[in-house]
Amino acid sequence: MTCAVLCIGTELTRGELVNTNAAWLASALTDEGFEVVEDVVIDDDRARIVATVQRLAKQVRVVVCTGGLGPTTDDLTTEAVAAAMGVPLVRDDPSLEAIRRRFEKAGRTMTASNAKQADFPEGAEILPNPVGTAPGFAITLGECLAFFMPGVPREMKRMFDDQIVPRVRSLAPRTSYQLRLRTYGLPESAVGERLAGVEAAYPGVTVGYRAHFPEIEVKVLARGASEAVARDVCERATVDVKSRLADVIYGEGEETFAGVLGRQLRTKGYTLAIAESCTGGLVGHMLTREPGASDFLLVDAVTYANSAKTRILGVEEDALRGHGAVSPEVAAAMAEGVKRVSGADIALALTGVAGPTGGSDDKPVGTVFIAVAAAGATTVKQRHFSGDRHQIQTLAAYAGLHLVRQVCLV
Amino acid sequence: MTCAVLCIGTELTRGELVNTNAAWLASALTDEGFEVVEDVVIDDDRARIVATVQRLAKQVRVVVCTGGLGPTTDDLTTEAVAAAMGVPLVRDDPSLEAIRRRFEKAGRTMTASNAKQADFPEGAEILPNPVGTAPGFAITLGECLAFFMPGVPREMKRMFDDQIVPRVRSLAPRTSYQLRLRTYGLPESAVGERLAGVEAAYPGVTVGYRAHFPEIEVKVLARGASEAVARDVCERATVDVKSRLADVIYGEGEETFAGVLGRQLRTKGYTLAIAESCTGGLVGHMLTREPGASDFLLVDAVTYANSAKTRILGVEEDALRGHGAVSPEVAAAMAEGVKRVSGADIALALTGVAGPTGGSDDKPVGTVFIAVAAAGATTVKQRHFSGDRHQIQTLAAYAGLHLVRQVCLV
Repeated sequence: MTCAVLCIGTELTRGELVNTNAAWLASALTDEGFEVVEDVVIDDDRARIVATVQRLAKQVRVVVCTGGLGPTTDDLTTEAVAAAMGVPLVRDDPSLEAIRRRFEKAGRTMTASNAKQADFPEGAEILPNPVGTAPGFAITLGECLAFFMPGVPREMKRMFDDQIVPRVRSLAPRTSYQLRLRTYGLPESAVGERLAGVEAAYPGVTVGYRAHFPEIEVKVLARGASEAVARDVCERATVDVKSRLADVIYGEGEETFAGVLGRQLRTKGYTLAIAESCTGGLVGHMLTREPGASDFLLVDAVTYANSAKTRILGVEEDALRGHGAVSPEVAAAMAEGVKRVSGADIALALTGVAGPTGGSDDKPVGTVFIAVAAAGATTVKQRHFSGDRHQIQTLAAYAGLHLVRQVCLV
Repeated sequence: MTCAVLCIGTELTRGELVNTNAAWLASALTDEGFEVVEDVVIDDDRARIVATVQRLAKQVRVVVCTGGLGPTTDDLTTEAVAAAMGVPLVRDDPSLEAIRRRFEKAGRTMTASNAKQADFPEGAEILPNPVGTAPGFAITLGECLAFFMPGVPREMKRMFDDQIVPRVRSLAPRTSYQLRLRTYGLPESAVGERLAGVEAAYPGVTVGYRAHFPEIEVKVLARGASEAVARDVCERATVDVKSRLADVIYGEGEETFAGVLGRQLRTKGYTLAIAESCTGGLVGHMLTREPGASDFLLVDAVTYANSAKTRILGVEEDALRGHGAVSPEVAAAMAEGVKRVSGADIALALTGVAGPTGGSDDKPVGTVFIAVAAAGATTVKQRHFSGDRHQIQTLAAYAGLHLVRQVCLV
């Protein structure tokens, strides 16, 4: 069943506010089984509200709208909806009384402009607002059921959950099922090529992609006669997708690259120490964003200065002078040094040139040496990444965590 | 002059992603003098893309569109736009060559699906993409000028600034001027109260707020008969705003909290060392996202484990046992330890409980001790933050940097 989300407010069309209501509502409606086909934001313009409400009512079965129910002169939603329906506004005395009590309770006097918030299009069903002054309302326009709520996220969410979900749940029986797989190591186009033919092989399945740099998320969505049917085809298609991407899938759903590695380290009972230079703490930050990192991570020594590499990690001054801070020798010495001072089982070290300055012919911006020291041996890899400073740091951090997995966990 | 923003992608209509592109574009177009009357998001549905492009082309003079230019089967924008125009797709050889070179440079082979990104509606003007594979394009449809860009924010922003702004600037004479101030330390409502009356005192001025947790950005927008008139009133209002918020404004425009602190340290010639526990490297990451951090930052020792606090920072085991790792004594010892081992002028240390577990009656989740050691003295503050793990880490990192400024730079 199709639906649309409509958000009204000039502060939104001017970009003064990021529209988090739209994403929240789209996600909630998708969870309820609706196919959200359009999210539209328009400014506080009476004619545009009328035209948009009429257009959407012809195109979808349910419209969920936020904004423009406030007391000020630029709040025009209610009168525009009445115009779209061709009915007058009618004042609702119980709503007026509720607004008056709300003001009294807050020790303030209700102004005339607030009385406007008790006006509704004739025939509308009023939706109470227990956490704010503006009530919402529901109308039927042709075949379409339309709901109007305040734009304040806290009030909107409460009204959606309490008033709208019970009214729409029976309309859209859930007939879809989705699984999400997370990959690292291939660009989006190569992931897409590997999955060529999946949609044709599993009717009802759509494969979607989303780039979360440098990862590609693969979404397998199935639609069917019922949720059980959709789930069955989704799971079969996902087995196929997993076999095609076996070398690059690291997790599912909300899992993160660093979180999965952390869980693997914890399972094996390994402790980890990190020495970072060009990544400036990003590797440690990725690991410690997830709860439980203290179970395995002993230290992340972000030794930016050469003096810190020497004083804290014991990297020889000769090595720094002879090979330079960005060198396989120093990467290895950093890994071995942080392993020694921390007593960890595994140590990861990264040193490189993140840019925008600091590159040379020999070691251009993007050159990174990654070392993993474990079980008496040290592995060093040279990589070259392109992109801006933040992209190079991110690519290096992922490559470092990936090397830990390759050396110690496979 | 009216314009509309169109974003295409099922990940948006399903609410899997908050649409930050729309707000960024709406704000940028407003800055250019356009009246943005509609932001619309539709799913990757060919018929809906055709209908929406045709509808908007009749309603506004400029349409700016993002998304659906990728290489995969769900990327339908280009072919739908050609259908909306009633023209065929034409392959552009120079674009194909540029995509091929991009792949070669990255050491990868271009796949057949990427070739699709060199197809454009006949008659379209191609907009180069220096930072990604998918070029954009511009078309004229009736009276409307429409631009199509990739959905990746970094690529979109660059293309908008380089290609679209020069093409639309003459259409909408700029009659507004905006200044942006960045604040830390007050909630949005308190910032708003301090600025009560500013709009009334400076006719033509609108004050907007945007929360970038935990900061509040204040935007002073003025409209006038010309850009010069608007600039004059904007600058006068901004002087007033700055005096009302003097204690919480840290910068302007694109400046960042960590970037401003880094510049101040560099100017004074101070070196900094950091020892982090609960923030897991976030403080170092904030400082090193900005180029030039190597001028002042010697080391960030993220000593997650107690053993690392002892072995690397020299924190006494007795202090850890007696007071606990989350204590003013250990915070001070961490700061003094990292100062000693690094030889830095200033040392910052943070230890606390970021949650969700690890809290106690005595030291609930959100308890953080922050220490700054400098010039022979150590300052320790206890703070209590609420929120989820990431919010607590962010608030603690800001508070740590703020304490460095208070102790050493004021």
